[in-house]
Amino acid sequence: MTFELYEREPPIPPSEFVRVGADDLRSFVSSIFRAYGVPENDADVVADVLVTADLFGISSHGVQRVSRYIGGIKCGNVNVKPKISFHGRGAIGVVDGDNGLGQVVGVRCVEFALERVRDYGLSLILAKNSNHYGIAGYYALKILDAGFIGFSSTNSDKLVSYVNSLGRFLGTNPIAIAIPTPHPPPILFDAATSIIPVGKIEMYSKLGKSIPEGWVIDLEGNMLSGDAKKVLELIRGYKASILPLGGLGEDYGGHKGSGLAFIVDIICGVLSGAAWGIHVGYTIGSRPANVGHAFAAIDIESIMPRSEFLSRIEQYINEIKSLPKHPKADRVWIPGEKAWLTMQTRLKIGIPIHLNVYNELNNIAAESGLTRELKIISRC
Amino acid sequence: MTFELYEREPPIPPSEFVRVGADDLRSFVSSIFRAYGVPENDADVVADVLVTADLFGISSHGVQRVSRYIGGIKCGNVNVKPKISFHGRGAIGVVDGDNGLGQVVGVRCVEFALERVRDYGLSLILAKNSNHYGIAGYYALKILDAGFIGFSSTNSDKLVSYVNSLGRFLGTNPIAIAIPTPHPPPILFDAATSIIPVGKIEMYSKLGKSIPEGWVIDLEGNMLSGDAKKVLELIRGYKASILPLGGLGEDYGGHKGSGLAFIVDIICGVLSGAAWGIHVGYTIGSRPANVGHAFAAIDIESIMPRSEFLSRIEQYINEIKSLPKHPKADRVWIPGEKAWLTMQTRLKIGIPIHLNVYNELNNIAAESGLTRELKIISRC
Repeated sequence: MTFELYEREPPIPPSEFVRVGADDLRSFVSSIFRAYGVPENDADVVADVLVTADLFGISSHGVQRVSRYIGGIKCGNVNVKPKISFHGRGAIGVVDGDNGLGQVVGVRCVEFALERVRDYGLSLILAKNSNHYGIAGYYALKILDAGFIGFSSTNSDKLVSYVNSLGRFLGTNPIAIAIPTPHPPPILFDAATSIIPVGKIEMYSKLGKSIPEGWVIDLEGNMLSGDAKKVLELIRGYKASILPLGGLGEDYGGHKGSGLAFIVDIICGVLSGAAWGIHVGYTIGSRPANVGHAFAAIDIESIMPRSEFLSRIEQYINEIKSLPKHPKADRVWIPGEKAWLTMQTRLKIGIPIHLNVYNELNNIAAESGLTRELKIISRC
Repeated sequence: MTFELYEREPPIPPSEFVRVGADDLRSFVSSIFRAYGVPENDADVVADVLVTADLFGISSHGVQRVSRYIGGIKCGNVNVKPKISFHGRGAIGVVDGDNGLGQVVGVRCVEFALERVRDYGLSLILAKNSNHYGIAGYYALKILDAGFIGFSSTNSDKLVSYVNSLGRFLGTNPIAIAIPTPHPPPILFDAATSIIPVGKIEMYSKLGKSIPEGWVIDLEGNMLSGDAKKVLELIRGYKASILPLGGLGEDYGGHKGSGLAFIVDIICGVLSGAAWGIHVGYTIGSRPANVGHAFAAIDIESIMPRSEFLSRIEQYINEIKSLPKHPKADRVWIPGEKAWLTMQTRLKIGIPIHLNVYNELNNIAAESGLTRELKIISRC
């Protein structure tokens, strides 16, 4: 199979980026975590989740987070050798992550979800005492790889305002669902319940771009727009908040976005026994973050033959792909298609890493006693 | 307990409305369905779902739909004595509704979901060969009434454009989730995945109001605004479509709203064996609608003691209620609070029914051989 070269988040300006190989990046990042006492398998898991985000073109959740995670280990919030425990009944259960790395807890939860979906056709596993787990879609795809419809969601530290109110209160609380297809890519819906992920403002800030009205409000409720760097500073200083999906007020559905974020938080945070809303901590801080997650699996074969499901899905995708395109749109996309095309591209030509991140990774590696540097395969 | 009088959809202009009692309306509507051959219990179910929508202030899904449902029975699409069957495994299953009334199929699915959640702590029941089932929240609340977290969703006939495309393609595909609280009201999130429900445009049309830009596009992709009556005609004539939650394009999350609608359709339509997207029929038409639904239940006690969950939820609600209000907002609401206050109000002072609907109901009743009229308890 051949694919067009496509990157949903191209390296701009190219002069500030280098490309590295996915395998090399994975083993480099894994060795950093091992150097901080993370067991080999767990370090590989964390590295795989981070590098997958970079392959998907979601650099905000990629290896630029290594620094934050290592900071969490250094300050004692993140437990590198957690004793992960489980209790549950039938198709449902909850994992106590013992403040382990979110990715380690997440992948363990997926294993519990897979055991149970095989027995009962359906499963739901929650997690408490966990940490930031990276892209929600990773876990949904893990469940899909085992043959099931996969779901994952997490709460996160406060960034988003609750509808009709002011200030940072809700997390961006994403929802990810992966649906098998007869040919790659699988369908992967993976979206924050906020109007934009904070990574988008970070990217606009790096590019010196203006942000449009409708994404962010200040503590008086005024819309903020323009200089992304300034807006990002205000958000970080708790002087501004991101709006929920649906925007300000109820006219365009702000109550729907904030309602979805609230429900995600009730399942991942309140029901699991984790923190919720304003109580969810940051990876580096005075107390463990106590992030909560949810993972679910659905067995297609308990409902209809897999081949029948796949041919129905194929027809649906074809119907979408045949739709007349809006004149202002680039094309009509299936959820997950952009990430998948970006991954194919980056597996071929390498992953673009910002020079700041490249240097940071080498410095962290050196600090931890590693002697090699990340190999550059090309300039951008 | 005393409550303020509040109606989220007040009767405007009051001169065009009368108020009727909920019990009388329920028995009146039930007797219409019985007259068309619907068994007594099933007729009561349909009437209860419709009257609950009116009590909640969602008149678009209330007794004004009686005419449409009776039309479905008359044209032969809706089977008044369906043979509802089930197959499944463990915690999951699918109901074949045999073209029964959506409410009858829905309540049967809730029973299957409750049986299974008691055994496995979790359940998911899908439905195919069903019809329009009214407000999704009704079924989530039925599951909540039995002590569980309740979920329901349905697909519906095409009204909404898929992101970056033109024309009516997706249903408004709502998602409802009900969460127990220590004191009423329960949390009830019940939202279409479109930017607005079509009922909102119908209401604006009746009130002669202008609709704002950002809700509807025409077949060339232009934003439609202004005269709601004209816009509604264009939608009904397949010359315009409602935008998904998140609006036009991807800048404000139109891919999230249409992605959620797509996922709902995959679970309710593709996986269940029902129709999806453009194939979902209307109640009255040349072939059965083959609507699909989903119902899920989560057992709180399988995860944590119910009392602990309720006290955590109470704290979360208090935290929301203490948030500083946006200056343009009326107040900070919990999902489901408006519907619940409206219901308390209408149980006291009666349900406002538009005179057109009042006359229509009496005419349908007379046509079906009933000799009494719906009793007016007050003018508005």
